[in-house]
Amino acid sequence: MEGTDEQVNFGIDDLPVRDELRGKSPYGAPQLDVPVRLNTNENPYQLPEPLVERIAERVREAARDLNRYPDRDAVELRTQLAKYLTDTSGHEVGLANVWAANGSNEVIQQLLQTFGGPGRTAIGFEPSYSMHALIARGTGTGWISGPRNADFTVDVEAAVQAISENQPDVVFITTPNNPTGNAVPPETVLALYEAAQAAKPSMVVVDEAYIEFSHGDSLLPLIEGRPNLVVSRTMSKAFGAAGLRLGYLAAHPAVVDAVQLVRLPYHLSAVTQATALAALEHTDTLLKYVEQLKSERDRLVSELRAAGYEVVESDANFVQFGRFEDSHTAWQAILDRGVLVRDNGIPGWLRVSAGTPGENDAFLDAVRDIKKEQSA
Amino acid sequence: MEGTDEQVNFGIDDLPVRDELRGKSPYGAPQLDVPVRLNTNENPYQLPEPLVERIAERVREAARDLNRYPDRDAVELRTQLAKYLTDTSGHEVGLANVWAANGSNEVIQQLLQTFGGPGRTAIGFEPSYSMHALIARGTGTGWISGPRNADFTVDVEAAVQAISENQPDVVFITTPNNPTGNAVPPETVLALYEAAQAAKPSMVVVDEAYIEFSHGDSLLPLIEGRPNLVVSRTMSKAFGAAGLRLGYLAAHPAVVDAVQLVRLPYHLSAVTQATALAALEHTDTLLKYVEQLKSERDRLVSELRAAGYEVVESDANFVQFGRFEDSHTAWQAILDRGVLVRDNGIPGWLRVSAGTPGENDAFLDAVRDIKKEQSA
Repeated sequence: MEGTDEQVNFGIDDLPVRDELRGKSPYGAPQLDVPVRLNTNENPYQLPEPLVERIAERVREAARDLNRYPDRDAVELRTQLAKYLTDTSGHEVGLANVWAANGSNEVIQQLLQTFGGPGRTAIGFEPSYSMHALIARGTGTGWISGPRNADFTVDVEAAVQAISENQPDVVFITTPNNPTGNAVPPETVLALYEAAQAAKPSMVVVDEAYIEFSHGDSLLPLIEGRPNLVVSRTMSKAFGAAGLRLGYLAAHPAVVDAVQLVRLPYHLSAVTQATALAALEHTDTLLKYVEQLKSERDRLVSELRAAGYEVVESDANFVQFGRFEDSHTAWQAILDRGVLVRDNGIPGWLRVSAGTPGENDAFLDAVRDIKKEQSA
Repeated sequence: MEGTDEQVNFGIDDLPVRDELRGKSPYGAPQLDVPVRLNTNENPYQLPEPLVERIAERVREAARDLNRYPDRDAVELRTQLAKYLTDTSGHEVGLANVWAANGSNEVIQQLLQTFGGPGRTAIGFEPSYSMHALIARGTGTGWISGPRNADFTVDVEAAVQAISENQPDVVFITTPNNPTGNAVPPETVLALYEAAQAAKPSMVVVDEAYIEFSHGDSLLPLIEGRPNLVVSRTMSKAFGAAGLRLGYLAAHPAVVDAVQLVRLPYHLSAVTQATALAALEHTDTLLKYVEQLKSERDRLVSELRAAGYEVVESDANFVQFGRFEDSHTAWQAILDRGVLVRDNGIPGWLRVSAGTPGENDAFLDAVRDIKKEQSA
C-alpha cells in the first residue's frame, strides 16, 4: 500500500487497541547479525543429517494429505511424548496425561485461558521467564510479581505469604529458572502447592523448559495425586528444535480435557506433528548433545568464576553472570567483541547461552579481555 | 498414570476452571471413518506430487537450522502472501500490510486479544462461522449475536441498528458466509463499516476464508483508506492445505504492528513457513483445482434443486441445503448411505462440502434416494 501522508502517520495508538497495550513493544530479543549468538538459549547444534532426512521423509508423507485437517488430538505425537517422559523420569504417564501446542508459550496461554483470564490472577517469582507475565496480560489475567531472594532462589516463606495474601488462581514456578539458571527444590514446589490449595484450589504450573540440562531430576512425578499441578515442557532446547515450536504439558487427565475447551481446533499442524515425531525417534542422539552442553555450561560457570565474575548456580543451558555497574554497557562491550549475550533487564547481570566449545571460547575471551581492560 | 478411583472420577468440573467453561464441550466436527467425508469444507484434492516434493525439499533445508528460532516476523512468507494477494485482487499490498499465524483462528484470536478482550464486545451476524463466538469467549470478549434475514443474507438495516445499539469493538462479516455459503456485497460491508465508526472507532473483520471460490471479487481493496478494516484469509481451502494451519490477514500497517503486541513470539514454526512458501510457489496449479471445485459446487446446487431440495446461493466450496423437518435425522440418513455431511445446528438445514466428482455423485445419489423413499 503506497499510502497517503495521513496513512503513513497513522500508528498503533490511532487504532482502538486495548488500553493496556498502548505504548507497549512486542516481546523479543534484538536479532543482530553477529558471529557468535548466545542470547536466546538456543541449542547450538544443527540437527544431525539422518534426522534432517527423517524429517523430510515424514513431512513428505504428511504433505500428501495436507488437504485434510490434521489430527485434532495429536494422538500419535502425545503418545510418543508420554513415552519420552516415562522413559526419562521413571514416572509412567500416558496419552491422557499429555497435551501439546505450538511452543510452551501456547501451552501457557491455553492454561491461562482455562484457569486464569478476566477477574483472575497469576503469580510468578521474579525475575523469571518474562513471557508468563506477558501471556497473563494477553489473556486478561491479573499479574502478581512475587519475591525472590537476592541470590535468586525462591524465598519459601515470602512466596507462601504472597500466595496466601493474594490467593492467585495460577502459580508459576520455573525450574530451572530463566534467566537466573538455578533449579527449585521439590520441597519448595510442594510447599507452594500446599499454600496454593489452602484458601481455594489453584493451579500450579511448573515450567520445566530447561529441565533436561539440570543436575537434578524432573518434578514430573509430583503430578501423581496432585490434579492441580501441571508440568510444562518444550522441544526447543533439549531436542534442539526451537524452530519447530513444540511445547507440551503433563498433568492429570482432567487438565488435558480442560485445555481442550480453549484450544483452537486443529491448532497443531500436520507438518509440526510429523517433524516432532521424527525428532522423538532420534531422542538418544539429541540427548547426547545435551550431555555435551551440560559440560560446556559447567565450564562456563567455572571459567567465569576464575575470571573474577559472579555466577548464579546453573541447572540450565545458560549462565547468569555479573556483576556489572551497568549491564547495558557490559552487554555492548561483549557485543563489540563479536558475541551477542542477553540483557534481561536485571540490574548488574547478563545471561549467556551455552554454545559450542568454540563459541564459548570466543565468549570467554571477550569477558576475560573486558576484565583485563578494567584492571589496566 | 494408572490412577486411583479418586483420580478416575476427577473431572474438568473438579478443577478451578473459569465458570463460563463449565459444562462446555470442545469445538470440533465428529471425526467418523466414512467412505465419503464432505463435512469440514476440506479441499478433496491431495497435493500434487511436484508440490509434495518441493515441500520435502524446503522443509529439509529448514530442518538443518531447526535448532534456531524461526524468523519471528516471517518476512519471506508475508512478502509472498502479499504478492499472492496483489496478483489475485489487483490491489497492491506489501509485507507491511500482511500478518500470518497458525490458521485464521489464531489470526482472529490475536485480533480479539488486541481489539476485544475483557470489558469489550464483538458482534457477528448469525448463523455464521461459530469459531468467532468461541474465540471471543476464549479471549474474554463479550459476544453479541447479530441478526440475519430468513434467506441468510445480512439484513443491512437490522445489522446497522445492532451495531449502533451495542457499539461493539469488533464486527465480524464472513463472506462468503459459513455455513450458509452466500457472499456479502461490498455495499453491505461499507454500510456496516460506517456504522461501526459512527459512535466510536471499531474494528471490522471481513473473514474471507472461502473467497477464492466466490463468483465475485475479494473485498481486499476496501482496506485502502480504512485503517479499521481487516481482511482475514486462509491457505486451508483454496490452497488445499487445511493440515498446514496457515491463516493471514491484510490491513493497514498499523494493524499488523498492533497484533504483534499480543502474538506469541516465534509463533510460526520454521516448518510451517517453509511448507507455506512451497505451496505459494505452486499457486497456479492449486487455483486450477479451485476452478474445478467451483464447477462441482455449481453442479451440487443445480442437482440438489433438481432433486427437490432448497439450496442457499453458494459462493464457497460448500452448499447449504434443506429443508428437513429434523436435520439430525436427515444427517443420519445420509451417513447411513456412506456420506458424512455437517449438521451445523441450523434447524432444517445441512451443509455439504464440494468433493471430487465421484464423492459428489455418491452424495447426490444418497440425497436423491432419500427423496425417493419419502415420496414412496
